[in-house]
Amino acid sequence: MDHKYDILQLLEQVKNGEITPEDALLDLKIAPFEDLGYAKVDYHRSVRQGSSEVIFGQGKTAQQIQGIVKSMHAKGSQNILITRISNDKIDYLEKEIDLDYRRNAHLAIAYPKETTSLGNIVVATGGTSDMNVAEEAAVTAEVLGNHVTRLYDVGVAGIHRLLSNLEPLMSARVVIAVAGMEGALASVVGGLVDCPVIGVPTSVGYGASFEGVSALLSMLNSCASGVSVVNIDNGFGAGYLASRINQMEGLK
Amino acid sequence: MDHKYDILQLLEQVKNGEITPEDALLDLKIAPFEDLGYAKVDYHRSVRQGSSEVIFGQGKTAQQIQGIVKSMHAKGSQNILITRISNDKIDYLEKEIDLDYRRNAHLAIAYPKETTSLGNIVVATGGTSDMNVAEEAAVTAEVLGNHVTRLYDVGVAGIHRLLSNLEPLMSARVVIAVAGMEGALASVVGGLVDCPVIGVPTSVGYGASFEGVSALLSMLNSCASGVSVVNIDNGFGAGYLASRINQMEGLK
Amino acid sequence: MDHKYDILQLLEQVKNGEITPEDALLDLKIAPFEDLGYAKVDYHRSVRQGSSEVIFGQGKTAQQIQGIVKSMHAKGSQNILITRISNDKIDYLEKEIDLDYRRNAHLAIAYPKETTSLGNIVVATGGTSDMNVAEEAAVTAEVLGNHVTRLYDVGVAGIHRLLSNLEPLMSARVVIAVAGMEGALASVVGGLVDCPVIGVPTSVGYGASFEGVSALLSMLNSCASGVSVVNIDNGFGAGYLASRINQMEGLK
Amino acid sequence: MDHKYDILQLLEQVKNGEITPEDALLDLKIAPFEDLGYAKVDYHRSVRQGSSEVIFGQGKTAQQIQGIVKSMHAKGSQNILITRISNDKIDYLEKEIDLDYRRNAHLAIAYPKETTSLGNIVVATGGTSDMNVAEEAAVTAEVLGNHVTRLYDVGVAGIHRLLSNLEPLMSARVVIAVAGMEGALASVVGGLVDCPVIGVPTSVGYGASFEGVSALLSMLNSCASGVSVVNIDNGFGAGYLASRINQMEGLK
Amino acid sequence: MDHKYDILQLLEQVKNGEITPEDALLDLKIAPFEDLGYAKVDYHRSVRQGSSEVIFGQGKTAQQIQGIVKSMHAKGSQNILITRISNDKIDYLEKEIDLDYRRNAHLAIAYPKETTSLGNIVVATGGTSDMNVAEEAAVTAEVLGNHVTRLYDVGVAGIHRLLSNLEPLMSARVVIAVAGMEGALASVVGGLVDCPVIGVPTSVGYGASFEGVSALLSMLNSCASGVSVVNIDNGFGAGYLASRINQMEGLK
Amino acid sequence: MDHKYDILQLLEQVKNGEITPEDALLDLKIAPFEDLGYAKVDYHRSVRQGSSEVIFGQGKTAQQIQGIVKSMHAKGSQNILITRISNDKIDYLEKEIDLDYRRNAHLAIAYPKETTSLGNIVVATGGTSDMNVAEEAAVTAEVLGNHVTRLYDVGVAGIHRLLSNLEPLMSARVVIAVAGMEGALASVVGGLVDCPVIGVPTSVGYGASFEGVSALLSMLNSCASGVSVVNIDNGFGAGYLASRINQMEGLK
Amino acid sequence: MDHKYDILQLLEQVKNGEITPEDALLDLKIAPFEDLGYAKVDYHRSVRQGSSEVIFGQGKTAQQIQGIVKSMHAKGSQNILITRISNDKIDYLEKEIDLDYRRNAHLAIAYPKETTSLGNIVVATGGTSDMNVAEEAAVTAEVLGNHVTRLYDVGVAGIHRLLSNLEPLMSARVVIAVAGMEGALASVVGGLVDCPVIGVPTSVGYGASFEGVSALLSMLNSCASGVSVVNIDNGFGAGYLASRINQMEGLK
Amino acid sequence: MDHKYDILQLLEQVKNGEITPEDALLDLKIAPFEDLGYAKVDYHRSVRQGSSEVIFGQGKTAQQIQGIVKSMHAKGSQNILITRISNDKIDYLEKEIDLDYRRNAHLAIAYPKETTSLGNIVVATGGTSDMNVAEEAAVTAEVLGNHVTRLYDVGVAGIHRLLSNLEPLMSARVVIAVAGMEGALASVVGGLVDCPVIGVPTSVGYGASFEGVSALLSMLNSCASGVSVVNIDNGFGAGYLASRINQMEGLK
Repeated sequence: MDHKYDILQLLEQVKNGEITPEDALLDLKIAPFEDLGYAKVDYHRSVRQGSSEVIFGQGKTAQQIQGIVKSMHAKGSQNILITRISNDKIDYLEKEIDLDYRRNAHLAIAYPKETTSLGNIVVATGGTSDMNVAEEAAVTAEVLGNHVTRLYDVGVAGIHRLLSNLEPLMSARVVIAVAGMEGALASVVGGLVDCPVIGVPTSVGYGASFEGVSALLSMLNSCASGVSVVNIDNGFGAGYLASRINQMEGLK
Repeated sequence: MDHKYDILQLLEQVKNGEITPEDALLDLKIAPFEDLGYAKVDYHRSVRQGSSEVIFGQGKTAQQIQGIVKSMHAKGSQNILITRISNDKIDYLEKEIDLDYRRNAHLAIAYPKETTSLGNIVVATGGTSDMNVAEEAAVTAEVLGNHVTRLYDVGVAGIHRLLSNLEPLMSARVVIAVAGMEGALASVVGGLVDCPVIGVPTSVGYGASFEGVSALLSMLNSCASGVSVVNIDNGFGAGYLASRINQMEGLK
Repeated sequence: MDHKYDILQLLEQVKNGEITPEDALLDLKIAPFEDLGYAKVDYHRSVRQGSSEVIFGQGKTAQQIQGIVKSMHAKGSQNILITRISNDKIDYLEKEIDLDYRRNAHLAIAYPKETTSLGNIVVATGGTSDMNVAEEAAVTAEVLGNHVTRLYDVGVAGIHRLLSNLEPLMSARVVIAVAGMEGALASVVGGLVDCPVIGVPTSVGYGASFEGVSALLSMLNSCASGVSVVNIDNGFGAGYLASRINQMEGLK
Repeated sequence: MDHKYDILQLLEQVKNGEITPEDALLDLKIAPFEDLGYAKVDYHRSVRQGSSEVIFGQGKTAQQIQGIVKSMHAKGSQNILITRISNDKIDYLEKEIDLDYRRNAHLAIAYPKETTSLGNIVVATGGTSDMNVAEEAAVTAEVLGNHVTRLYDVGVAGIHRLLSNLEPLMSARVVIAVAGMEGALASVVGGLVDCPVIGVPTSVGYGASFEGVSALLSMLNSCASGVSVVNIDNGFGAGYLASRINQMEGLK
Repeated sequence: MDHKYDILQLLEQVKNGEITPEDALLDLKIAPFEDLGYAKVDYHRSVRQGSSEVIFGQGKTAQQIQGIVKSMHAKGSQNILITRISNDKIDYLEKEIDLDYRRNAHLAIAYPKETTSLGNIVVATGGTSDMNVAEEAAVTAEVLGNHVTRLYDVGVAGIHRLLSNLEPLMSARVVIAVAGMEGALASVVGGLVDCPVIGVPTSVGYGASFEGVSALLSMLNSCASGVSVVNIDNGFGAGYLASRINQMEGLK
Repeated sequence: MDHKYDILQLLEQVKNGEITPEDALLDLKIAPFEDLGYAKVDYHRSVRQGSSEVIFGQGKTAQQIQGIVKSMHAKGSQNILITRISNDKIDYLEKEIDLDYRRNAHLAIAYPKETTSLGNIVVATGGTSDMNVAEEAAVTAEVLGNHVTRLYDVGVAGIHRLLSNLEPLMSARVVIAVAGMEGALASVVGGLVDCPVIGVPTSVGYGASFEGVSALLSMLNSCASGVSVVNIDNGFGAGYLASRINQMEGLK
Repeated sequence: MDHKYDILQLLEQVKNGEITPEDALLDLKIAPFEDLGYAKVDYHRSVRQGSSEVIFGQGKTAQQIQGIVKSMHAKGSQNILITRISNDKIDYLEKEIDLDYRRNAHLAIAYPKETTSLGNIVVATGGTSDMNVAEEAAVTAEVLGNHVTRLYDVGVAGIHRLLSNLEPLMSARVVIAVAGMEGALASVVGGLVDCPVIGVPTSVGYGASFEGVSALLSMLNSCASGVSVVNIDNGFGAGYLASRINQMEGLK
Repeated sequence: MDHKYDILQLLEQVKNGEITPEDALLDLKIAPFEDLGYAKVDYHRSVRQGSSEVIFGQGKTAQQIQGIVKSMHAKGSQNILITRISNDKIDYLEKEIDLDYRRNAHLAIAYPKETTSLGNIVVATGGTSDMNVAEEAAVTAEVLGNHVTRLYDVGVAGIHRLLSNLEPLMSARVVIAVAGMEGALASVVGGLVDCPVIGVPTSVGYGASFEGVSALLSMLNSCASGVSVVNIDNGFGAGYLASRINQMEGLK
């Protein structure tokens, strides 16, 4: 963190009488948090191919979202991701601002802009019912500047569907395994590939699936190494994390 | 149920004065339960290649077990299965009676006798730690007169181990899938074979495996058809049910 | 598995120059999955009296279902089972295709065809409220070519209702015990019959029934041997498994 | 409640100058709790054939228990019930005081005295493993002056065992149904008898019995009317409540 | 059970040639279950002041309920209790048959008739929100011929409300304690009275009340003796059991 | 408690013949509960800057609430707090009585009156979605006469937001930490301040938040000392308790 | 926060050349955390009659604890509280350092010193088995300089025990209610007193107490206002929080 | 996957008569699984700086472990990681083979070899009790060839401890956040850094920590993006995954 030098510079200025101790105190009081914020900015820079801001749409009115988006856009933001946004809010917003959206994934992108398409993230699902969550992951990753390959409906009950898609799996930098019910996809994929696997349990199922708990426990207990898990139905989180991993710089 | 004829015969005897109504009443009072018991006996006959009685060893003293076994043996029983029997009880019993046993599976067979070896039941496990439960299932099935093929340590995290064993799986009449942790084995096997699959979740694992709950939920939510589940660690129940299915007569 | 001979035949053709190594490679690449599929086909053959394909209706649009059904019908399929299909989708489909349906069981059969009616599967329920799940099991089994006997409302709180139906129970090849609340039916039936019993816990009940958890746990802990369990409300799974068992060939 | 007359008498004494208002105040300050206690005493009188005090042994030292017992005995108590008492405390106490005990039921009776044996309480168990809890119930009821009939090992998996014991069940004033695993005994008994049934789930079982939770939920969801439930393994509570019910006076 | 004499009589008829053995067999086959039914009839006789039949309204159509009610009424039944009946079914039925109802308690009484009012059952609630469940208990008990005293809104957070109602509590033959949230009412009442206490946890509350689980656990763990528990919101079950206890004959 | 002197006075009157023992008995019977009530009144006096009565709106009709409010107002109450009141009831009530309300917090204040604003209670939230619960806490505290500082959206995922608000936190007498999802706010705040912290878990979140359970467990396990917890979404309880603490008198 | 002046002073020194910017930077780097620590120190000062440091003994060796204690003592600390310390560690430590301890409460106080005894904290328990946790709370509060009144074994099952202790309860500044099993004590106490009540659920109980979960849920759902809850068995946390509240300064 | 060329080569050999079709068939039968294995080997190559094999020690005897290790070593393996190995097995093995071990982390390394130390993985813990799990993660990562920085005891209850360690956190390529109790560390770290964060909930805590469930839920619900979670106490899994991520090649 370079900011130590800023403080040193500030102290030199105090020493030289260029700034009064009282004014220096005010600067110092704010500094640590600017520094913390800087870390964030640094992060944002590392994902500069994509959108740098995300709005959690749930629990916000369409007007509130519009306000935030416009304020961000005014500062130059593009490709602003809005997650968990309902159809009626999409209906409102698309009349007001430049908006791309995926209704099933409850996602919208304000002021969309072509992004680069780096690396390779595979998003695999156990069934077609897991698609909404998978799309939330896939579109999040795409907006953040990643290349995404979709392998949908390759669940373990028909293992040949997965095995006939080994090539895209083997060449992935990150795999997002999205599955409900027994959630075994993450384990099987984790045993096949040598890249990080992010499991996303979904609430798809009934009865003893307990709205995703069964799949969550399965993935946490995966006997395959290299698998980690995010919250039930958290496609956004998986897409975001996959982007971080996919865009990592190599070791020097 | 043939016993109706016995009652008819009894009534004929009443009619013919060979037995008084009072004595017939006494016989009738016992009959229904003999009849119900008879159904059991009929069942036992259908599994006559094996042992017809099982003793749940847990919560019984070695002396109590010995007493029951001796009483059964006196009536002609052989291959008497004793489940969940601890090592110290085995130590005691093997000095007293003719006893075969598998310490790891907590199983013993009193007055063992060579049985026939019918059909084909495959017992598959996810890992080596699931072996104790699997052996409880396998030995139970063997004592009941079934041929058993063991496929151990073929868990889904290295799916090739399972795929290189397709032939025994494909030729099974019943498969018992024994797995802890994420319990995905039942689903993958269920998707490969066309015979009934009995899932046995095991308490193998730690943390969020919750002593078998994770595997249990996985198996209950199996996206493969043809899979049913027994209690956590219930190898005996799986072996017993597999025997029932394996030894079914064909449709006429 | 006969397909080894197909590969051998292919290799002979390579040897004889009838096919180039490059084309043979293409064939081989697909083969393993055809082989796996073949196993399925083999299975399907074993249930050839009934429908060989099942569509999970939940989460699919009526149009999507129609598309799949028509594609399957074009390849000769009949008696195509559609599970968990809502009334509005039934309303749409019955105008478009030849459709039989059971609204309460959320089941439909596209291009229905008379099937044979093999063996004997008994579907028993604890109460009248369990009927919808029971019908899902019963109709599934019937469409797959099995003879089904229904014993509804024979719950254990009035044990005489069950005892007065011993004869159909005793002559069943498989019993499906469908019950909510305390789910004791599976245990009591399991203690009476000598054939495999499949327990289907239902979400019928309130309060501490926890939407089927109480019945599920009861059935998993059944003190009767020969009982296994499927997911809460999974009538289809029970009917499908019962069909597999009922139609087993006898031991040679 | 007769004690109102005591207070009236006290007030008369104040009026007559036989007692000063200050002394009367002291009496009154204690009175309400004597009154509340009196209700207890009244209850105790109704069960006067048995012990009127119970000591919860768990978490008390043998010396503490001895102290309480001796203090109670000094005031004339006999048949003092000590529940959940470990063997080592029994070993200590039996050297010090007149003690009867049932090690398996973790029960002891200090200064035992012959009691009357009123009415009829049936204690039934699903299996032999439930006996310890059942004995806690049975002995508690006996010490409190009730006649107890034991029906052990009549679980529902062999329903004939229960049905061949209908007579004692039918003539019971209260039935205590003690069962672990799937706990179905309470429902089946509840459907057979017309007296109150108290279900005692036990922690007997393994895996998905979850140390009595499965049996507890089963009993709470009993489809039979007239069944209520106490805590897992709470034999004492069931015996105590059964005694209250058994010894009720008839309606006038 | 008197029916043994009926069988003896039957056997005498066989002996005397008044009935053929074949016909006698048919009679015998049905007899045991008539006997079991007889036990029920005996029970019903013991509650003959009230309704002898109860219809669980949930999951039945208004027409089905009407059919059952009319069939029962044709056989002479009155005061037929219908539980968990929704308002629309009440609306339908009250046009068709003689119907009394309590909409809040989801209860209706078909062909109501004045009953006797025996003994004394106190129904107490923790709060006003518990009233619907409490009314289900109270009306059930009243229809079954019991006198009911209501003590509503006497929860433990204002213990003086309970203490100022000691007299009705002390004179009760049975107390039904209905409470949601922390469910402490059952324990406090259990510590005050010397009659059986039936706890009814309700789903009243929010957050960590988990729809009645908190109250259920509280009541099961009551440190007061003499308390047992029924299912969450099961007012009917409590009223029914309370009636059984209240109407017990005294010991001879 | 001064009432002892009242009883003494009563006894003196009995002694002096100014009151008959019978009348004194009646007085005595009521006295203890008036005394208990007096304690309540004493409590109410201690919060006399604010409203002394709270109505739990849930499960009461608008008319019932109106009745209670009017009765209280007739006795002089002002600032009557109504919690968990729905919008339609607000709509009804605001036409009938003098009413202030916060729709989002489901709170209304009948006959509002300016209160004093004592001490300093900080209400902090993890996110904007926690605002409704936070407002319930804040308005409750305000109505009860406390000064409230709001620090909303200072969740731990951006720790700088919290750190830049240290001054209001450090000067608080009580902090209410309102958070859903992982609920870490309570721990972090608890580690920063030296006053009591009340954690309010909220049901904000999805999937494995289990409607507030995750946040509840987090707060209960807080590694920071000085933190206690109320029920999920219980803003009122936190505001009420914070008021009690904030308004404590100092040690003498 | 006064420390701003320290930084100002530092800046003045830089200005005056008394300290180099480089050295000032080092000071500043540490300062914020000294500042944060200062807040703690400020708190500690407010409880200066007691110990200012607490060592969590669990998971630390006796030698490690000794090291920490000696280091703290060297800096002048006394009355150092060590929680969750096992007997063997107490045995070791009492030979090495000046140590007071309560074995049952798993507490030790290193270098004990007479403290003042401010205000009044009442620690009440439901039963004698809750005493260990209660002592942890009581001794913690005493070491921190508070006066503690113990009211043990006043559980709600015998409500008169609690009511006969109203005076100490009414005069408390804080009440800690410690209870296992059904945990109703917190609610009843909360309805009686007008000071903050801290509920401590304990793991005392068996069966459906689920090691404290039942009591925890009860207390969280308390229908009494003014009650908050800490973790199961967390006597230390309750004592620490009670001390914070008890020692609050009055409003100015 | 290059192996297609091997098959092509095989087919050419068949064409050329260098190999018979029968022998080719045998080769082909094994090939797919060698191919799948090859993918594994490929993975292993990518982590060739470290150990390529891991032995799960739990449930294996010391002799079994020794056998596996020796077999692997014979094939050239070094740095063979053995996880969850108990002290007695370490005692046995260190006499037999070249063994390095960390008893607290239950880890051993057979035939240890100096590895490179690439990149930077930070392992942070909430408390000192989390160290064992943290060491399992750290040593796993080190053995696999990664540079590891340990930040222990930086839990959120004293947030300054974490903030004074921003520099190592900010420069990490991956952070492993290990925490029990409320598990908030993962969220706070996730909000500070811009690299992937792997949360490891630990079973450290008591009461409502439910052996790690509280921390697990906290981490799954983290409001910080970029956080994923592994099983409770799964230090190995976190270290292994962190190694995969840390050693990723950069995007081309």
